Amino acid sequence: MQSDRPGLALATMQDVWDFYRTDLQGVEMHIQKHVDSGVPLINQVALYILTSGGKRIRPLLLMISARLNGYDAPGDQTVTLASAIEYIHAATLLHDDVLDDASLRRGKDPAHALWGNRATILVGDYLYTKAVCLAVQLGLLEVDSILAHACRIMAEGEALQLLHCGDLALTDENYLKIVECKTAALMSAACRLGGVISGAGWDEKEALGRFGRYLGIAYQVADDTLDYVADQGQLGKVLGKDLSEGKITLPLLHLLRTANGLERSLVETVVRDGQASQAQLREILDLMQTHGSTAYALDVARQHIAMAQQSLEVFDGGPHRQALSAVADFVVARDH
Amino acid sequence: MQSDRPGLALATMQDVWDFYRTDLQGVEMHIQKHVDSGVPLINQVALYILTSGGKRIRPLLLMISARLNGYDAPGDQTVTLASAIEYIHAATLLHDDVLDDASLRRGKDPAHALWGNRATILVGDYLYTKAVCLAVQLGLLEVDSILAHACRIMAEGEALQLLHCGDLALTDENYLKIVECKTAALMSAACRLGGVISGAGWDEKEALGRFGRYLGIAYQVADDTLDYVADQGQLGKVLGKDLSEGKITLPLLHLLRTANGLERSLVETVVRDGQASQAQLREILDLMQTHGSTAYALDVARQHIAMAQQSLEVFDGGPHRQALSAVADFVVARDH
Repeated sequence: MQSDRPGLALATMQDVWDFYRTDLQGVEMHIQKHVDSGVPLINQVALYILTSGGKRIRPLLLMISARLNGYDAPGDQTVTLASAIEYIHAATLLHDDVLDDASLRRGKDPAHALWGNRATILVGDYLYTKAVCLAVQLGLLEVDSILAHACRIMAEGEALQLLHCGDLALTDENYLKIVECKTAALMSAACRLGGVISGAGWDEKEALGRFGRYLGIAYQVADDTLDYVADQGQLGKVLGKDLSEGKITLPLLHLLRTANGLERSLVETVVRDGQASQAQLREILDLMQTHGSTAYALDVARQHIAMAQQSLEVFDGGPHRQALSAVADFVVARDH
Repeated sequence: MQSDRPGLALATMQDVWDFYRTDLQGVEMHIQKHVDSGVPLINQVALYILTSGGKRIRPLLLMISARLNGYDAPGDQTVTLASAIEYIHAATLLHDDVLDDASLRRGKDPAHALWGNRATILVGDYLYTKAVCLAVQLGLLEVDSILAHACRIMAEGEALQLLHCGDLALTDENYLKIVECKTAALMSAACRLGGVISGAGWDEKEALGRFGRYLGIAYQVADDTLDYVADQGQLGKVLGKDLSEGKITLPLLHLLRTANGLERSLVETVVRDGQASQAQLREILDLMQTHGSTAYALDVARQHIAMAQQSLEVFDGGPHRQALSAVADFVVARDH
């Protein structure tokens, strides 16, 4: 962090990156230094996924949350925990690559295409357990408990998603539950852990946990929506990828309930076949525009950002609260 | 446990099962009761793997180790920890099923053939994290640390094995390192945790850890050897399975260094092709008999059992030490 001037406005994500640059550099060094397995293959795959352009949102959330509670000089413990959170995130990316048979990850080849499914699963397992090892070193039971709980919830979320694969009768409520489990649980844990490590009280820890949860839901809803609007060159994503994988997300649920019979059967056909022709995909994207489905989903994301920001009212104003607020705005505004 | 009569001889595995029946029933109930995810698919897959005929060797080792340290009535904590160990073991079985593309597991269909790779990987992840959640509840940092360390070592062992897949230049030393990581680490942790939970001193915990490590190595060496001698009907294993998967194990390493050029090139061909005809497999099994390769590997296993039993000399004699010794004899004598 550069300095701590009260009243300094951190309005954009770039302001935030600049303000916490030193903190993040410390985390970055720790992340790479502790990929230190005796098995070279593990280090190779782990470093590939860990240095593939992630924005370190989760470590950043943890760092800012700690500073918000008056932690002036985040020391080794905060850096260790921020790394552990990023290891867990990387582990889920590796397992997701195998689960989704992903063809692109942040515009690069996914790990499983380079090293095969076996190495990808194993290095995912390794990063999970390495994260727990790092956390355990801190000797704080509350930390272990929060991390273990988050990981369990994430696995449940992924399983719930699998269970509802291709399920056009999925409700918005269940969709949001999946999103909360698979994505928001870890972001919530990152924020809460920032509170724990800085000795925050119960109310503050609850507030940070809520902030992270709402932010995580918004993040995933926005991400799912971008699957139907993003420019591939911009995000390194394949447009309509979720659709061909049978992943039913909020814009599609909106379209299904607003579409007429003919439009609905187009969606049903595509989901049933597990693939869409370019013409079918184009038609669905047009329908989402016509019916306002992507706009609706982004509204839901923004509502959650508003709730996230309200959760912070327990804290005094200042640069760190502004920073969390700016991160929240950023996750729904990405690449628009 | 039925009673605690000094001098009672626990010579066979059946004696051991009978003696600790009540303890094991408690663990069994706990294992099944805590498969309590809100996602039915998780419970279904988890219960399938957890009730597919495992012998509960690891929970048993933990229970006996605790009693050896004078723990008279293993309470909730011991049962919780024994379940956690079995959950971790089950998680590794699920990931192994996917990794090995196994066609049989204990004579039953493997999970991935019934539910697909995705559910199998996810439920593996779930069981890992559920185990950590159970352990964290105990509030003992030493417990968390031992479990996290064991899981990390196991993932390293699996990766090391993958790295040496089909590697006919593998040394005995590296083979034993793989075995120690992927199998012995968890058995060692089970025994050591029995010591921790019963308040054992440093020497006793070290001795239990060593006992479990030697026993685990012996267990895996014997298991790898049975792949070349067992009757399929007896163990539910496919003979020569490791060979066709490129898994280079001790009897094969022995054969490679004692075989003549022609015999060696048969092994090389089979490993390179990743499959063996019935005639080729039969010839390799015959060669192993002729060169004494399986006998050699079983000798190595028995040496490790002897070292395991020597590790227990720090403890007084009595039923629990006899029981650990009987379990050790059992793991290398299975199905002979």
